[in-house]
Amino acid sequence: MTSPHLLTALEHFAVATGACSGVLAGSGKRVDLFGVLVLGLVTAFGGGTLRDVLLGAYPVVWVARPELLSTGLGAALVTFFAARHWEFPAGGLLVADAFGLALFTVLGARRAAEFAAAQGFALSPVAEIGFGVVTGVAGGVLRDALMREIPLVFRKDIYLYATAALAGAAVLILGRELGVPEQPRWLLASGTTLALRLAAIRWKLTLPLFRSRHEPPAAAG
Amino acid sequence: MTSPHLLTALEHFAVATGACSGVLAGSGKRVDLFGVLVLGLVTAFGGGTLRDVLLGAYPVVWVARPELLSTGLGAALVTFFAARHWEFPAGGLLVADAFGLALFTVLGARRAAEFAAAQGFALSPVAEIGFGVVTGVAGGVLRDALMREIPLVFRKDIYLYATAALAGAAVLILGRELGVPEQPRWLLASGTTLALRLAAIRWKLTLPLFRSRHEPPAAAG
Amino acid sequence: MTSPHLLTALEHFAVATGACSGVLAGSGKRVDLFGVLVLGLVTAFGGGTLRDVLLGAYPVVWVARPELLSTGLGAALVTFFAARHWEFPAGGLLVADAFGLALFTVLGARRAAEFAAAQGFALSPVAEIGFGVVTGVAGGVLRDALMREIPLVFRKDIYLYATAALAGAAVLILGRELGVPEQPRWLLASGTTLALRLAAIRWKLTLPLFRSRHEPPAAAG
Repeated sequence: MTSPHLLTALEHFAVATGACSGVLAGSGKRVDLFGVLVLGLVTAFGGGTLRDVLLGAYPVVWVARPELLSTGLGAALVTFFAARHWEFPAGGLLVADAFGLALFTVLGARRAAEFAAAQGFALSPVAEIGFGVVTGVAGGVLRDALMREIPLVFRKDIYLYATAALAGAAVLILGRELGVPEQPRWLLASGTTLALRLAAIRWKLTLPLFRSRHEPPAAAG
Repeated sequence: MTSPHLLTALEHFAVATGACSGVLAGSGKRVDLFGVLVLGLVTAFGGGTLRDVLLGAYPVVWVARPELLSTGLGAALVTFFAARHWEFPAGGLLVADAFGLALFTVLGARRAAEFAAAQGFALSPVAEIGFGVVTGVAGGVLRDALMREIPLVFRKDIYLYATAALAGAAVLILGRELGVPEQPRWLLASGTTLALRLAAIRWKLTLPLFRSRHEPPAAAG
Repeated sequence: MTSPHLLTALEHFAVATGACSGVLAGSGKRVDLFGVLVLGLVTAFGGGTLRDVLLGAYPVVWVARPELLSTGLGAALVTFFAARHWEFPAGGLLVADAFGLALFTVLGARRAAEFAAAQGFALSPVAEIGFGVVTGVAGGVLRDALMREIPLVFRKDIYLYATAALAGAAVLILGRELGVPEQPRWLLASGTTLALRLAAIRWKLTLPLFRSRHEPPAAAG
């Protein structure tokens, strides 16, 4: 039996982790306090916001749940000041980030399924997985786009980041088809994402690179 | 008399073309299987998704029509594996892409007009043209933004890409004002886009470059 | 007593200013007439559009108010042709831009509050400020992202651009809590943004840069 209080606490933790990683992404760039706060909030809420906008599920997450917004803002501010004097442990951040990825992916797929059911439209399994992956990874993609970097999910050395989200969301939906009850199913799905991501970091696992006989495209596609 | 089956088949073809061009855009970049699938899906569905979100027309296209999503996913997967061994004919891709541009533009403007009519709000001709152009070109713009390139539609050497979409959408709306019946109007409009784009590729036609007495803006301009 | 006609006139002025600054941002880049029009419209309407999409307030601003769209399009066209022969006064543009920032921020926060009230959901003060800031600055952020530059709001040398928006929106909401009537409150809030931004340009005021003990992040976060 999962306590709703536990789930809420985990969400706050994942939002804080996202905000923290967003702020630290501004390290070494010429950004000021405001820019860093935006980076933190975009990383923490970008995935959930894009999911809600693509679903048409209004009000979006940070409007509907102001206490999550406060957590994100507070975590970004604390990171901004703490990072001047203190170096965050890289390993701890990676694990916290993997945890956030797993939680957001499962919660995102679940929110999409519940919203579709409430609105009375069907959601294909592929779309449902897509909403999970979007919720899990879009915050980081937006952060990278704002900082003018190739989004991490497109880079080989990210070690199964988005792929771990994909696998977790797939387990979630497969489990439902097989009649696995809700809570073991959530645990299994988020455990899949978490384990894949941590194993990929540990052993530097990657998907095969795209090898193409084409030159990078010139004029039109 | 247009058969709805024919229209649906054309849509699947255009989605497959978009997914294929998105995957090939990852050639020569360090992207993996997942990144390449995302590029394919974003290129195929980015325009329609942005149109639906800007309209507030929920559920968005790839949720409402899962069979199109499957086509896009399948085409991206096939391209990923085929491109290792086989070089796609550049000329054929350009023509297929021009065809997709023409179809998406006309369908996009039409969808916006129908949705506005169903919701009971007026759509200005400029906005209607805008929805057509967004549907036609936004997939490619998003693909380029994710790959950190200046979007093709902003580059001179793209040969009237967005302009062809603009002209087709304008013909569509002008034809309606003049009382041209639906089917010849669609044919005329998509024919305009297709012909303009193909002619522009053939004879390297471009719009005049922006010539300005200004330096590239510095601080806030 | 603010006349609604005056407010409308100010809005048209701010849209025209945004479109003009968007077009001029294409100076020195290889963009054509179409690209420049898109840059102008994105700069003028990006903030309001993103606000409406995040709120779920449909139809979005340029659909609901076609006369504003015409103003933006006209201003972009005029700038495109005028910039070939005439150099716009940089100081005048900066002041006009600061004015647009102030107006859009206040109108954005107000629109969000009114929409939330009409829909019957609460809007936290932080979210309300966020909608004001998004309306004020997102157009420029999108313009920069399309042109592949680090968005100006993230750069130190932008002189309190987004921070001025933040302060204005905060004044607006604080004033309401303190019971200040609408019109002095709007004037005070937009005056705060305008004064801060102009003072920051004049005396080159900036927020402190983010100083971090971290290296720019490598793999994940």
